[in-house]
Amino acid sequence: MAGNTLGTLFTVTTFGESHGPAIGCVVDGCPPGLALTEADIQTELDRRRPGTSRHVTQRQELDAVEILSGVFEGVTTGAPIALLIRNTDQRSKDYGNIVETFRPGHADYTYWQKYGVRDYRGGGRSSARLTAPVVAAGAIARKWLFEKYGTQIRGYMSQLGDIEIPFTDWSHVAENPFFAPDADVVPKLEAYMDDLRREGDSVGAKLRVIATGVPVGLGDPLFDKLDADIAFAMMGLNAVKGVEIGAGFKSVSQKGSEHGDELTPAGFVGNNAGGVLGGISTGQDVEVAIAIKPTSSIRTPRRSIDKAGQPATVETFGRHDPCVGIRATPIAEALLALVLIDHALRHRAQCGDVSVDTPKIAARAPE
Amino acid sequence: MAGNTLGTLFTVTTFGESHGPAIGCVVDGCPPGLALTEADIQTELDRRRPGTSRHVTQRQELDAVEILSGVFEGVTTGAPIALLIRNTDQRSKDYGNIVETFRPGHADYTYWQKYGVRDYRGGGRSSARLTAPVVAAGAIARKWLFEKYGTQIRGYMSQLGDIEIPFTDWSHVAENPFFAPDADVVPKLEAYMDDLRREGDSVGAKLRVIATGVPVGLGDPLFDKLDADIAFAMMGLNAVKGVEIGAGFKSVSQKGSEHGDELTPAGFVGNNAGGVLGGISTGQDVEVAIAIKPTSSIRTPRRSIDKAGQPATVETFGRHDPCVGIRATPIAEALLALVLIDHALRHRAQCGDVSVDTPKIAARAPE
Amino acid sequence: MAGNTLGTLFTVTTFGESHGPAIGCVVDGCPPGLALTEADIQTELDRRRPGTSRHVTQRQELDAVEILSGVFEGVTTGAPIALLIRNTDQRSKDYGNIVETFRPGHADYTYWQKYGVRDYRGGGRSSARLTAPVVAAGAIARKWLFEKYGTQIRGYMSQLGDIEIPFTDWSHVAENPFFAPDADVVPKLEAYMDDLRREGDSVGAKLRVIATGVPVGLGDPLFDKLDADIAFAMMGLNAVKGVEIGAGFKSVSQKGSEHGDELTPAGFVGNNAGGVLGGISTGQDVEVAIAIKPTSSIRTPRRSIDKAGQPATVETFGRHDPCVGIRATPIAEALLALVLIDHALRHRAQCGDVSVDTPKIAARAPE
Amino acid sequence: MAGNTLGTLFTVTTFGESHGPAIGCVVDGCPPGLALTEADIQTELDRRRPGTSRHVTQRQELDAVEILSGVFEGVTTGAPIALLIRNTDQRSKDYGNIVETFRPGHADYTYWQKYGVRDYRGGGRSSARLTAPVVAAGAIARKWLFEKYGTQIRGYMSQLGDIEIPFTDWSHVAENPFFAPDADVVPKLEAYMDDLRREGDSVGAKLRVIATGVPVGLGDPLFDKLDADIAFAMMGLNAVKGVEIGAGFKSVSQKGSEHGDELTPAGFVGNNAGGVLGGISTGQDVEVAIAIKPTSSIRTPRRSIDKAGQPATVETFGRHDPCVGIRATPIAEALLALVLIDHALRHRAQCGDVSVDTPKIAARAPE
Repeated sequence: MAGNTLGTLFTVTTFGESHGPAIGCVVDGCPPGLALTEADIQTELDRRRPGTSRHVTQRQELDAVEILSGVFEGVTTGAPIALLIRNTDQRSKDYGNIVETFRPGHADYTYWQKYGVRDYRGGGRSSARLTAPVVAAGAIARKWLFEKYGTQIRGYMSQLGDIEIPFTDWSHVAENPFFAPDADVVPKLEAYMDDLRREGDSVGAKLRVIATGVPVGLGDPLFDKLDADIAFAMMGLNAVKGVEIGAGFKSVSQKGSEHGDELTPAGFVGNNAGGVLGGISTGQDVEVAIAIKPTSSIRTPRRSIDKAGQPATVETFGRHDPCVGIRATPIAEALLALVLIDHALRHRAQCGDVSVDTPKIAARAPE
Repeated sequence: MAGNTLGTLFTVTTFGESHGPAIGCVVDGCPPGLALTEADIQTELDRRRPGTSRHVTQRQELDAVEILSGVFEGVTTGAPIALLIRNTDQRSKDYGNIVETFRPGHADYTYWQKYGVRDYRGGGRSSARLTAPVVAAGAIARKWLFEKYGTQIRGYMSQLGDIEIPFTDWSHVAENPFFAPDADVVPKLEAYMDDLRREGDSVGAKLRVIATGVPVGLGDPLFDKLDADIAFAMMGLNAVKGVEIGAGFKSVSQKGSEHGDELTPAGFVGNNAGGVLGGISTGQDVEVAIAIKPTSSIRTPRRSIDKAGQPATVETFGRHDPCVGIRATPIAEALLALVLIDHALRHRAQCGDVSVDTPKIAARAPE
Repeated sequence: MAGNTLGTLFTVTTFGESHGPAIGCVVDGCPPGLALTEADIQTELDRRRPGTSRHVTQRQELDAVEILSGVFEGVTTGAPIALLIRNTDQRSKDYGNIVETFRPGHADYTYWQKYGVRDYRGGGRSSARLTAPVVAAGAIARKWLFEKYGTQIRGYMSQLGDIEIPFTDWSHVAENPFFAPDADVVPKLEAYMDDLRREGDSVGAKLRVIATGVPVGLGDPLFDKLDADIAFAMMGLNAVKGVEIGAGFKSVSQKGSEHGDELTPAGFVGNNAGGVLGGISTGQDVEVAIAIKPTSSIRTPRRSIDKAGQPATVETFGRHDPCVGIRATPIAEALLALVLIDHALRHRAQCGDVSVDTPKIAARAPE
Repeated sequence: MAGNTLGTLFTVTTFGESHGPAIGCVVDGCPPGLALTEADIQTELDRRRPGTSRHVTQRQELDAVEILSGVFEGVTTGAPIALLIRNTDQRSKDYGNIVETFRPGHADYTYWQKYGVRDYRGGGRSSARLTAPVVAAGAIARKWLFEKYGTQIRGYMSQLGDIEIPFTDWSHVAENPFFAPDADVVPKLEAYMDDLRREGDSVGAKLRVIATGVPVGLGDPLFDKLDADIAFAMMGLNAVKGVEIGAGFKSVSQKGSEHGDELTPAGFVGNNAGGVLGGISTGQDVEVAIAIKPTSSIRTPRRSIDKAGQPATVETFGRHDPCVGIRATPIAEALLALVLIDHALRHRAQCGDVSVDTPKIAARAPE
């Protein structure tokens, strides 16, 4: 209840701080019998890993994961799966005035007000480093969802600052450090980021995440709707300031005759709903978009106050992502996977396993 | 876990269907000693009540609330507070092809797929009627928050379809059926709605909800952030497709030097954060925006399928809101209140009562 | 979290006070498709009802239950099931010094200390009257368990004060007001109770509850063991001071060679385990015993203090059960049913539906 | 919800298996500002450690604990506290027929039936080794409770097999490997255990645990009573078959005039209630007794079946405690501490910090 657990039946309890000895999580409720190795998890962690291009933080962390429990002879046992990632590149540096001063846009002020004590090293608990255990747990969820239902979860960057990124093809996403679904726009993104770094500034981004092969029937209508739980998970990701499902804010100016997706024996005619009606999955793609704010740690000097309430100036040097959105795609995918598996287990609890004896409506092809 | 409970320490468990004998909720965890009468709750219910203007559903429900428990001699006792609202205007009508056919944009198809059985009368459990118990519970939360911290929660419509509504003054909001904060725009909204009704169509809306007087320190950083719980509650409201905190999607194209709110001894200089940093309230206004999709029940005939998967046409007559956003303001306010009280109690649990011995930063004046 | 909810997936949230307008509960998570009428529930409520013999409280309550939601056309829909029971025989009487004084053995003192306010009418929230909603919810659980797995739950009184009651046959239990499984001992019990009433005193009792037809595999080993959840539910029943599973306290002086139930292809050889090993059901009978303390409300004058801490004398007149254990059998049965259904749903969530493809071990015949 | 978390506001999520690489837990919800070192935790772990006398298992484990997170500069930060204990003495041995055969009295059969897969090495997840993380977490709870309220939790063995152990003085408890509160009985206990070992058998035990300095007001009446949560925690401890609060099963034959503890301005006159009335602590000592069954692993050959349902004989060699009750005292103390701190935080959430402005009743002196 102190908030470090995500999920209700497939739960992920994370621990750790940016500069402590280790980070990790305990995954509880995983169905038994799933083949699982550290390599299954490492693959996803490597997609999120820092230091892999000049556009992200240069902190060097291998993020090597160790499975401490819950897997026996290569198979999950139903017992909790503890995952451990040692921190290895915490620099023993002078934290300077960060110890006494609140960095604008960061959690420094609020942590200090709430807890009266604050691990100021690299953001402590509020560091984006804590998304690694989420990605690790998400890897387990993705594997189970894929093996059980064929569900796949993929994301991409659809906007970087003012630059809108067209969707050309999924195949482009893994080929560039931005997770951009269009190879042609990449040089423009690189030049933009290089300028930003020179200016000592940062910028926001917009991501889209899409799940295909989602069974019909996931979601508990009031209040634990599938879309509500997605919004919860996404807004809980560092730096996220907005979440949309399906048509999102565009639905404000839509008419009902345009928004409501018609049905035909061949399937839904559109997907303004984003794959969720009344809080329950329709079997179409689940489509989510998120807004990520610009990194708060920038080299430009900024006004702030210190613990005594006196004026202070903050410049952040250290190693930081100039756009936290760049590495966020695998994390957002992991979060969507965690919400989906949780509701898949909830569906089994109340309604038994996903039913297949009703007339299926063909899912609309992904855009 | 079947999802009908909102909150963790101040919990609201709702029950009921649109055309069943009654709707209501059980509020658990309310601190003892709060003066509470049915009138305190009725006031809020009346703001949400149907049938009060020509722009909303003409269903006549007094929504008279009865307190069944948890209050003794006018004061809450710490025991659960059960609230009962009898349905009185369920028309005994011919449900026509709704029984066998799935209305586009509605939960008909997903409920049937999930549960194998569906209360089709007026949308059953998925009816917006079920927001009444939320408003009732929210009234209790609001009273406690105001008495304890001076917290106030207010909302307004900021856009109806394509019409953006300027914020002129809070005093305008209660003076028109749209909760519009600008009296001058009201005739335009009325004309727009009259046209819509004639066309047999519906439209979306955008609302903003703002809490002032929020204590610093509410929110549990990972994962139960204050903003994450707000996103969860809002996205769980019928028809909501998008949620923003503070700058929201605008932050995508912001630079870090613009977005990160600086601090001075006189307070924060801006509120792009929307009153939340690192998942914890800053003491500034908490600012939320939501996108509400157009009502799915429209008179225009639409394509669908029936239970056998055969093509069908659906026209919805009945009594419906042509813009569900019109009555949603009090509901969104209630949801924000429920999230805030829950985190206020969570703060007390882990950190003791809200601390006042730290240098206070003046909250930015509301816009 | 304020404690008025039992269960995790099949949840029962109760409300109400002894002398308030109504008591009831919301049952959430019930699988859809279960045939359910008010009569199904009333049958169980009638077994617990006061005023049916001279050995129990003479308060006259019909305990007529109304289903407010979650059932449509005679079948559960998966939505929350709200059950309402109006209080009808709250006497408008002089509460005398109970208002200012704490009755020994009752919750008066602790409620007042905890909440600072106390509904003193008939024990308020702490009244045994609040077990009625539990019995009502249990009736739903029992029906589902029986239809799904053939599970049956039965209890009996095994001791009244010093009188040990032999188990003769289940058929005797329903034939006497004590739920005694031996007709011959009933006259002795009646005489004993008549003496007690004359003395103005009360006495304790011991009950046993047994579930047959329990599927193998229910229970989550650490910490939510089936036996742990049973102990929780039973110790939460008013006046219970001890709980045993299987051999219970007898196992203290047993040797391992005696206690550990051997297995043969024909089944377990004994049931010292009480049907639970490692927190998970074995498929044998689940056997539980509980100790119920004597009613605290007695006519004999007793020493106490008042709110000012001054000495006071308390005599309780009103209408009370001289042995609360007499009416507790249906309640203990309901609690066991609620724990079992909860773990049945939890099993489905994590492991899929109860497996039947493993070599079955014959359950030991009930004693 | 898969059961590996204890508590609601102060939560302990454990992980690990007897012969895996490590065991441990994540403690969430700990109030910030508590001074905490590994030594604080190690002290308690050492009381439970195996291999310290000839009467317990000879497995050599230092149980050295590492704090991975949640503590900064010697003080808890409010973030989750992860505790890691590496397993070091898992023997690489031949597991023989345990792999295919179910040991009587053990969880082998039920785990296999539930999960379809089973870590058979040393009992896997169901090993008593998993009580170490509970003791570690309990050490944190104890420290906070003592510093905040002066609460102390102590336990002792009150019966070993047929030998009842008189309570002479608390000082004796730490002086012998049995946690016996009477030095004179120790030689008798030692001789008894030596005989048992020679016989290749095992025996049960009874423990008592007592908390002093418990604030008035802890416990949530329906259903999360303090005594219900204690029963849950205790029955969840390996091998526990019975739990009593206060007078326990003795209350069955008590009269109301004897059982109900009278109050005087000087305090309660007795403590049949065991410190809990109506589910809420009275401020008196909380008194708990538990029955622990004999160890199921014994050298004596026993009948069982194998996975194919065929007859088999099981003899357990390995390293085992001939009486699991011997090392259970620190564990039961830890569990009681965890329940108390959880309810202390719950009290703060709903009712604010423990009130001191009501006339205090002197607590009865501990027996």
